[in-house]
Amino acid sequence: METLTLNLSSPLIRHSPYLCSRFMSWFSSTSVARVPMQAIAFGTLPVMSRAQDFPISGTDGALVGFITGKSKVTELAHSVWGSLVQKGDTVVDATCGNGHDMLALLKMVANGSGRGCVYGMDIQRSAIENTSLLLKESVDEDEREMVKLFLVCHSKMETVIPKDTPVRLIVFNLGYLPGGDKTIITMSTTTLMALQSASHILHSGGLISMVVYVGHPGGREELQTVESFASSLPTESWVTCKFEVSNRPTGPVLVLIFKK
Amino acid sequence: METLTLNLSSPLIRHSPYLCSRFMSWFSSTSVARVPMQAIAFGTLPVMSRAQDFPISGTDGALVGFITGKSKVTELAHSVWGSLVQKGDTVVDATCGNGHDMLALLKMVANGSGRGCVYGMDIQRSAIENTSLLLKESVDEDEREMVKLFLVCHSKMETVIPKDTPVRLIVFNLGYLPGGDKTIITMSTTTLMALQSASHILHSGGLISMVVYVGHPGGREELQTVESFASSLPTESWVTCKFEVSNRPTGPVLVLIFKK
Repeated sequence: METLTLNLSSPLIRHSPYLCSRFMSWFSSTSVARVPMQAIAFGTLPVMSRAQDFPISGTDGALVGFITGKSKVTELAHSVWGSLVQKGDTVVDATCGNGHDMLALLKMVANGSGRGCVYGMDIQRSAIENTSLLLKESVDEDEREMVKLFLVCHSKMETVIPKDTPVRLIVFNLGYLPGGDKTIITMSTTTLMALQSASHILHSGGLISMVVYVGHPGGREELQTVESFASSLPTESWVTCKFEVSNRPTGPVLVLIFKK
Repeated sequence: METLTLNLSSPLIRHSPYLCSRFMSWFSSTSVARVPMQAIAFGTLPVMSRAQDFPISGTDGALVGFITGKSKVTELAHSVWGSLVQKGDTVVDATCGNGHDMLALLKMVANGSGRGCVYGMDIQRSAIENTSLLLKESVDEDEREMVKLFLVCHSKMETVIPKDTPVRLIVFNLGYLPGGDKTIITMSTTTLMALQSASHILHSGGLISMVVYVGHPGGREELQTVESFASSLPTESWVTCKFEVSNRPTGPVLVLIFKK
């Protein structure tokens, strides 16, 4: 008998059409009785192969999901963050967008004691507003107080994060605001400045995570800028990795920059 | 109190100087009493940050190890194989080398019932001999009977693997034989033929895994050949991924090709 773990109240899931659709697609293929539902808890989905005689097991769900085309690169990124970030950490969302990364990060650092902090920034007022709204809908006031939001370009992060803050993780989700004005995109010049700032701010043992989109005009150039910066970092102090789907030339690329 | 899980008899570990050295380095940094030991069981090592205040937890050990520079790309590959391969599967080691991948694969498919099969091949007689020797030292006769070794180029795999065999995984470790004649290397032309054969043989829901070395003459061209093939596969039937360390230009690259 199969067991489903459902968390109908999870806003992280309620706001993830992709996870919902993955679940619904899987659910419709099973023979168990249908029940009304709106959402499924993050991380409880089995990763499945199309070939029914080759079911996929294993604990590295997001990695195997990415390899087999079942999970998006953002899910792989979230999984990596979750393996690194500890309760009580300070982390930075350099491109808030609609707030989904921010919400995931807040859940990773919040420990109920008020320790932990998420700095968030975006150059677009609508992004800050959407993020605030999502947080208001999703978490209580105690957790919201752990978030510091700034209407500022990611290249200015050093002006809003106090010097010597032990930052564990800095995440970027580049490109344009989903559902917003697609002509407003992150630019290579400011992204490079943001990366330089991030590399200064980041604590030893911390990670910079960038999801880089290349399907829009300017996206490919931005990836080149990110790669050029990442590959120039000395191996004594940095490990920089790139994960990409090679047969989808417009697919997003995950660049991870770890400070030893 | 810390708990160590030791498996002194594991040949997989005994033959992995890297894992042993990782363990010894960690062990020497702890305050527990020293005990004589030769090896540690695969997968039980904690992944650690150099920054003592930023310990790294999480279950995705090999992935986080790779990102933080603690694990080699071959360990990441083994972890992916372990997530996909089931007991009783048929898998292929297209480049036996000294037999370490073969041994790892055999452990993944062997289930004590005689089901499961590992086809192995190499163009060099010394590689086949080294692999046979390692198997003789490491596993009992029942398990050795699950292995079929062939002195043949990887481009000829279709001649030794029976048609319609449901192959779950085909692994390549390109370049030269470690400890052997470094002038004998895998070549772009035969590697391309081998990839074409592998893509025919592979069952739906199966994976081709290639560790490509670029530090030797011809290695970069071979990677280009592999990438060109991998990126040309249609997204309807294939997912091809590339994992690389960007700031080590001579570091090996992991190419994974999944058949939907």
